[in-house]
Amino acid sequence: MEEIYVIGHKSPDTDSIVSAIAYAYYKRTKEGIKAVPARAGEINNETRFVLEKFGVEAPQLIENAAGKKVILVDHNEKSQAVEGIEEAEIVEIIDHHRIGDIQTGNPIFFLNRPVGSTSTIIYSDFFKRSNIEMPNHIKGILLGGILSDTVILRSPITTDEDKEIVEILSTDLGINAEEFGIEMFKVKSDLSKKSAREIIEMDYKKYEFSKGKIWVSQVETVDSEELRKRKEEFLNEMKKMKEEMGLSLIVVLLTDIIKRGCLMLAIADDESIIEKAFGKKLEDNEVWLPGVMSRKKQVIPPIENLMK
Amino acid sequence: MEEIYVIGHKSPDTDSIVSAIAYAYYKRTKEGIKAVPARAGEINNETRFVLEKFGVEAPQLIENAAGKKVILVDHNEKSQAVEGIEEAEIVEIIDHHRIGDIQTGNPIFFLNRPVGSTSTIIYSDFFKRSNIEMPNHIKGILLGGILSDTVILRSPITTDEDKEIVEILSTDLGINAEEFGIEMFKVKSDLSKKSAREIIEMDYKKYEFSKGKIWVSQVETVDSEELRKRKEEFLNEMKKMKEEMGLSLIVVLLTDIIKRGCLMLAIADDESIIEKAFGKKLEDNEVWLPGVMSRKKQVIPPIENLMK
Repeated sequence: MEEIYVIGHKSPDTDSIVSAIAYAYYKRTKEGIKAVPARAGEINNETRFVLEKFGVEAPQLIENAAGKKVILVDHNEKSQAVEGIEEAEIVEIIDHHRIGDIQTGNPIFFLNRPVGSTSTIIYSDFFKRSNIEMPNHIKGILLGGILSDTVILRSPITTDEDKEIVEILSTDLGINAEEFGIEMFKVKSDLSKKSAREIIEMDYKKYEFSKGKIWVSQVETVDSEELRKRKEEFLNEMKKMKEEMGLSLIVVLLTDIIKRGCLMLAIADDESIIEKAFGKKLEDNEVWLPGVMSRKKQVIPPIENLMK
Repeated sequence: MEEIYVIGHKSPDTDSIVSAIAYAYYKRTKEGIKAVPARAGEINNETRFVLEKFGVEAPQLIENAAGKKVILVDHNEKSQAVEGIEEAEIVEIIDHHRIGDIQTGNPIFFLNRPVGSTSTIIYSDFFKRSNIEMPNHIKGILLGGILSDTVILRSPITTDEDKEIVEILSTDLGINAEEFGIEMFKVKSDLSKKSAREIIEMDYKKYEFSKGKIWVSQVETVDSEELRKRKEEFLNEMKKMKEEMGLSLIVVLLTDIIKRGCLMLAIADDESIIEKAFGKKLEDNEVWLPGVMSRKKQVIPPIENLMK
């Protein structure tokens, strides 16, 4: 019997890996076909933590899928798919994203649902519907997949269905979902081995406005207090960078997904700009902005308005 | 509440119309949304027959979907969709064809399954799964949709699931599915008002080989005997056409989907070519070829081999 590889997108996240493992398990158990879980790139720290917690091996790496039969999970765009996808035979697609650009020559099974994760679909539309016994390791990794993609049920894409499944699986496993989720995100955002400069340069935007150049870094964390302990280290680095690049404002946003807000560190030629933009005064180069989660929508526009 | 139009492809066939009606009914009943069945073109005779049999009105015609919310059924290709689809908001897709070129900006529900008809999916994945009471008119038109798309369960795309649903629905309704299907195809292929010339010109291929020009018409029918009664009329017309166009062979295939074969009418400069090509002799300009259903695969190649 020919192998069918169940594979997620490149730069795999936890949902992409665990939905491949769980769906391959389902296909083998329910349909008796030779479904093999696969991955299109390196496993990240969060995913490794989830797999190890439930004693599950990482799927095999596929560098090129040409000539292979594949089931795509958690993506339906060529640009995100494993190399060689144009020469592979796509036999199924399970996803929760926008409808992309994959085309097939023959009719295939394609299920796309607007829910928080592909793991949600694997649970609801396959295991639950078929009444197939789920071993604990499958329950555990799917729980991890949902918590990861929905940012512990906080992302706006989260649906009631995601919440219900998290409730069911965590109760079954005797796991506190919130604690497990935070643990996952701590592993993901473990910055203890990174220097302040490395952290500041991980994810930044630079703008040149008529009144000056600005730099805005963003770091997502489950514990902004932990990072705040390194405030002096950050500020020293930010000062240097501001001088090196002739910036009039440098900002580091420590976005706290648990507290749902951000701790803003800033060094500015004119500190009043922060108060004008956000209604709160910078004190000792920091200010807590409750509810501010999006750099693109909530941080850049008010600064831009004042600087152009 | 904003209307959502459930609409099939252009040049709608029965499956495309009835799946739109049935799915809109399902969405209204189950989800309480304002789902309105629609069509992207004229209703054909077969569809009219099915709708009238079960007392169902034809859906409303939409000439341009720009600015509207739509659910696409029975297609997922832009070229087959109603005009204005680029400016419409596609909120769902239910289909049984290859994966085409529709893209969306947001995640939507898209279910594509390789079964005989979209009606099959509307029955299995929605009504049956939700345990929603189906009124007889919905059962009837879905039965019509399946029988139409699967050529009365004879097409190679037919699945066991299609067969089971036809069995269930026809038993429920007390209808003989085979008879109903044949009635439908009789209406579809009612050629009584067309002249022999019109019928010959409905669907033809012309080829020019080194040994001469040929013309091969094909007519699908549920009753080749009925058409055979007009044999003299056909032959007279074929004789004229052969002379007018300087053909060395003119063939009219009356493909009988019930008997699974074709009655070939032919006028040839050299009648022996038919025997050489098909192993049976032309007698009085006709020959019955059992199992021959495909002009492209079974009729043209053996003639081509002898004429080039």
